[in-house]
Amino acid sequence: MSDNVVPIKRASNDAPPTLTPILSLTATPMNAVNAIILDRMQSEIPLIPALAGHLIAGGGKRMRPMLTLAGAEVVGYQGTRHHKLAAAVEFIHTATLLHDDVVDGSEMRRGKSAANIVYGNPATVLVGDFLFSRAFELMVEDGSLKVLKILSGASAIIAQGEVDQLTAQRKIETSEERYLDIIGAKTAALFAAASRISAVVAEKDEAEELALDAYGRNLGIAFQLVDDAIDYDSDAAEMGKDRGDDFREGKMTLPVILAYARGNEEERRFWQDAIAGFANEDADLAHAVELIRKHDCVTATRDRARHYAQRACDALSIFPDSAARRAMVEAAQFAVARGY
Amino acid sequence: MSDNVVPIKRASNDAPPTLTPILSLTATPMNAVNAIILDRMQSEIPLIPALAGHLIAGGGKRMRPMLTLAGAEVVGYQGTRHHKLAAAVEFIHTATLLHDDVVDGSEMRRGKSAANIVYGNPATVLVGDFLFSRAFELMVEDGSLKVLKILSGASAIIAQGEVDQLTAQRKIETSEERYLDIIGAKTAALFAAASRISAVVAEKDEAEELALDAYGRNLGIAFQLVDDAIDYDSDAAEMGKDRGDDFREGKMTLPVILAYARGNEEERRFWQDAIAGFANEDADLAHAVELIRKHDCVTATRDRARHYAQRACDALSIFPDSAARRAMVEAAQFAVARGY
Repeated sequence: MSDNVVPIKRASNDAPPTLTPILSLTATPMNAVNAIILDRMQSEIPLIPALAGHLIAGGGKRMRPMLTLAGAEVVGYQGTRHHKLAAAVEFIHTATLLHDDVVDGSEMRRGKSAANIVYGNPATVLVGDFLFSRAFELMVEDGSLKVLKILSGASAIIAQGEVDQLTAQRKIETSEERYLDIIGAKTAALFAAASRISAVVAEKDEAEELALDAYGRNLGIAFQLVDDAIDYDSDAAEMGKDRGDDFREGKMTLPVILAYARGNEEERRFWQDAIAGFANEDADLAHAVELIRKHDCVTATRDRARHYAQRACDALSIFPDSAARRAMVEAAQFAVARGY
Repeated sequence: MSDNVVPIKRASNDAPPTLTPILSLTATPMNAVNAIILDRMQSEIPLIPALAGHLIAGGGKRMRPMLTLAGAEVVGYQGTRHHKLAAAVEFIHTATLLHDDVVDGSEMRRGKSAANIVYGNPATVLVGDFLFSRAFELMVEDGSLKVLKILSGASAIIAQGEVDQLTAQRKIETSEERYLDIIGAKTAALFAAASRISAVVAEKDEAEELALDAYGRNLGIAFQLVDDAIDYDSDAAEMGKDRGDDFREGKMTLPVILAYARGNEEERRFWQDAIAGFANEDADLAHAVELIRKHDCVTATRDRARHYAQRACDALSIFPDSAARRAMVEAAQFAVARGY
């Protein structure tokens, strides 16, 4: 039934894809998930809900728990066990965001001051640890060892991906292959696990588990690629995070990897200096954006993203056509199109 | 059979208590635990075993896994499931040490440069996350939801205790009661859980579980109290950590709480300034040590520790006399006597 899957390229007169269908699909259960999140981030220690709430209440797309909820719809799961697990997924994600902001020395997150700026690094590290522990408590309450295995495995892979990214930072020789390994670990592993666990609680067969895993993993890669493209896309709308952060931190993302590969000798010398941290003024960022545009590297990065988004959609072909499947397909299309 | 338990006060002509009996008791299984630790801290990302190994291979008493192993002996467990769980306990502990060193800006740990000094804060935070995830993977492999519940609960309590300690830092009004809450969470919860899980894998009844929990919890409090006393004890042998660290960080530990409570107006003004961070030169530390000696606060802290160590020993009275029980009693005696 793969011909049921809406192709990723739509006729140019179509309305642009949005998250509206998947948001509608998951709105009711997301209220239940949000209630669990708010309840389980509480603690007798007032600093914990204050700091966690700064990030959690501060918006965010709840993309990962949304995948758990959408996955449950597409497999026809009728229960509510996945609510607690979706909250656990969001806690794991929030913990990694808090630690990322400390690691990167971020100043902004989701359009406001990052938690580390408001509450300091020490509290931010420790509240991340608390949320991570709470995530495991929620999973243990659910009681599925299979879910625990998937999510503890994903957590270890995320941490390895983060360390790997740190190792690659300011290393101009980082290849596209290594970059894909890194984002596969630090971003896509949790997208994959979040999607997959709904097939587990629904007691579906392994093929459905693996289909949801593939959907989440490819969607995660597409999302990260487009995030990384937008950081260098002068045409894109302003994001919640500071523009040019990746450049100033010397992060080797795909637009830079491609611009370096496609550049001439003089351009390569610029990239070597910039990524090493010797050319990171505003004028250098402007020059970087210009070189990336010259070599079509934002477009190339979006093309790579389209490839993964298409794989995400095709992975859904084992499920019959449904509003849930159509919403998930459109979410993948949105992942590629956003920021245009 | 409580009269079988060796009393905590021994005749003064006895040899001082040591960890030798508990080290001998657990030496063989500890080799298996160490092999698991070394195996499971590996990763394709070379920075991970390098950083983790800096701390893990750098010594440490392996006190918490030792409690799991000793607990297994005292309940007569014959299997090997507790080896993996003891490794998980040590990983949780190592993760919290790495994050503590970032939080406190520590320079020394176990007699050498702390990991954050050698490898930087970012990698130290992330490798802590990795070890924490690995701990959960080990527990999931074992497959006991009861053990997972005990250790995920303990992890959340540890994180809360760490945040609470941060909140109390530089707050001269911190009471002995609040201090006991903090060390009960940040230190004793993992001691309790480490001991308790051996009764769980041995499928003993709840009374034995609770006895081991009480042994570990009280031992943990005694250990922390003596650690905190030693930081101000001019007679004590040099520890692995920097002397006077607690003072410079404005940590409200029991020796300070008691010296403040027992001090006159002038002394209290000194403590207010010192804990607020306005008097933390070497001369101030010397004055603090003098005031703590004047009011017998190291002795008083050790007396409090003796109380908890005695409770730890008495909790073991439900087990018949054995070499294991005697070794655990002597470990509690050692906890109080060390550093004299």
